[in-house]
Amino acid sequence: MVRSLALLLLSVVALKAGDPLPSWNDTAPKRAILDYLARVTTEGSPDFIPVPERIAVFDNDGTLWPENPVPFQLNFCLDEIRRRLPENPQWNDDPAVQAALGGDLPALTANHYAKLLRVLALAGSGMTSTEYADRVRNWLSTARHPRFDRPYDRLAYQPMLELLAHLRANGFKTFIVSGGGADFMRVFTEPVYGIPPEQVVGSNTRPVFELRDGGPVLIKTMDDLFMDDREGKPVGIHQFIGRRPVAAFGNSDGDKAMLEYTTIANPRPAFGLIVHHTDADREYAYDAKPGSTGKLVEALTEAPRRGWVVVDMKSDWRQVFSRTNSHEGALAPESNLYP
Amino acid sequence: MVRSLALLLLSVVALKAGDPLPSWNDTAPKRAILDYLARVTTEGSPDFIPVPERIAVFDNDGTLWPENPVPFQLNFCLDEIRRRLPENPQWNDDPAVQAALGGDLPALTANHYAKLLRVLALAGSGMTSTEYADRVRNWLSTARHPRFDRPYDRLAYQPMLELLAHLRANGFKTFIVSGGGADFMRVFTEPVYGIPPEQVVGSNTRPVFELRDGGPVLIKTMDDLFMDDREGKPVGIHQFIGRRPVAAFGNSDGDKAMLEYTTIANPRPAFGLIVHHTDADREYAYDAKPGSTGKLVEALTEAPRRGWVVVDMKSDWRQVFSRTNSHEGALAPESNLYP
Repeated sequence: MVRSLALLLLSVVALKAGDPLPSWNDTAPKRAILDYLARVTTEGSPDFIPVPERIAVFDNDGTLWPENPVPFQLNFCLDEIRRRLPENPQWNDDPAVQAALGGDLPALTANHYAKLLRVLALAGSGMTSTEYADRVRNWLSTARHPRFDRPYDRLAYQPMLELLAHLRANGFKTFIVSGGGADFMRVFTEPVYGIPPEQVVGSNTRPVFELRDGGPVLIKTMDDLFMDDREGKPVGIHQFIGRRPVAAFGNSDGDKAMLEYTTIANPRPAFGLIVHHTDADREYAYDAKPGSTGKLVEALTEAPRRGWVVVDMKSDWRQVFSRTNSHEGALAPESNLYP
Repeated sequence: MVRSLALLLLSVVALKAGDPLPSWNDTAPKRAILDYLARVTTEGSPDFIPVPERIAVFDNDGTLWPENPVPFQLNFCLDEIRRRLPENPQWNDDPAVQAALGGDLPALTANHYAKLLRVLALAGSGMTSTEYADRVRNWLSTARHPRFDRPYDRLAYQPMLELLAHLRANGFKTFIVSGGGADFMRVFTEPVYGIPPEQVVGSNTRPVFELRDGGPVLIKTMDDLFMDDREGKPVGIHQFIGRRPVAAFGNSDGDKAMLEYTTIANPRPAFGLIVHHTDADREYAYDAKPGSTGKLVEALTEAPRRGWVVVDMKSDWRQVFSRTNSHEGALAPESNLYP
């Protein structure tokens, strides 16, 4: 009895030491992830998935980092407009700018997001792609989240960082497929998530190439806007990745089509997971709240029928954010960064 | 004298044994490639390029395989239209089909390629992406090149296959950036070039997502056509890869903007190369011929000023195609396929 208890304790300790997902409680979602990975990486098994087909897609806002009180990119746009207002006084008369700076979210999203697109255009077009990236980088190094008082890119979910690294350690290639702007996300996905720019699929517009005296540039425009959201996500996956993923991770109805595309009638064993925001103390609790970003109603209803794993943030995550303000230790070693 | 000759012969033999580019003659282009790779992969050197930034982009038609007598994708379209003509007799009255089946290239390309786009639409829209890929696969397994009497996907240039593999062995991630259709190319780039679908940038249109009884599908359309050619190439690189390449390989004026974007004022040491088709005996000789595909005039003029290496196919390539009809031995080992 004493001896078997000691053995049990020992094995628990051993398990912990090699636990690839230490920020996950030992509940159903964690077990489902580990079971799936064991199944599809066992050579000779009928469920084995060849390495080139191990494509995993992740939504960003609300799945890898928070999307409250508003999606972070919107805060970047507002800060940019404020910063550039002195040199653009005519913006004061722009109804979109007025709605944005007045925090009038219903006005911004009315009429098919017309005012929101105008705000995105002011902050994200007319400059070179390099200038834009510098502005995002500068904003990330100075702005802080209003509630957590941390730089925005220090708010990645620790359990998801572990999951990304563990998938890569199992031969998966990890992609972001998000409604956020590709040019916005590509500034930070490599240092924060270990996901290189070429594995970031996002909303985008068509830039214009110009060969200037100082060298070639790409001017950002609002032409040919592609919204990588809802039914746009499978479209973006097809256009940018070119094959069906076998694992998809999201948190809202905007991810439903991506989860369907990944998991329904896939000839390979597929995995779908939804992060359910249930933790008002440590993060936020929302899903069907009127006016909330990241509405999760249809996808949550569909989850049991499709076999999608639903993560209850409050009970399934031991830890939400990294304890330190730095990413050190969160990411996999360099060799796993670019599979 | 005898002894130094023996030593010389020995070193030549030793070099051959480990030669990563055996189908290249020991002329200036090969030396330029090897010098560049040695420079940028030497740690501690000021020219060292970190692995994540080792992005190499390749045009396809005329750079990795021939584009004569017409680009292979056009032959696929013609064969498809012929195959489906019995079930679509109305196509007989279509001026675009008449021009295509009559081989009237000037008519096809007149009026901003209107008839050519119609032909591409007939062969490449209205079906699911899976059906389309199956048709391309079936065509590749049955059609043969009119002159070389080989399946089209057995006509990859052997020197370029070696170059792709050697770049990957040196930590480069190899991409295709081609005017050809992405959905067309993705069927064969992995088995032929070792380039997975997610590293293929091509001309494309926006499909439509549908959840059918049998599962999710993407219906191919002609919406939002993006031509990944000329100034479109740097645009495609930015949208799909998201960072500037350090090495670019092309063969025509359609690749000029991509070569400029890669090599001009790049903070990293950059490499540009043009394959010049000078070998009518083993392949084709063309550049400024009226009506020829793959016109090479402006880029050839610009090459010396930009330091782009020009490959004279006739004198710089020991061998053009693989001697066998199979790809065995041409590709790098599996571990190098997906860096």
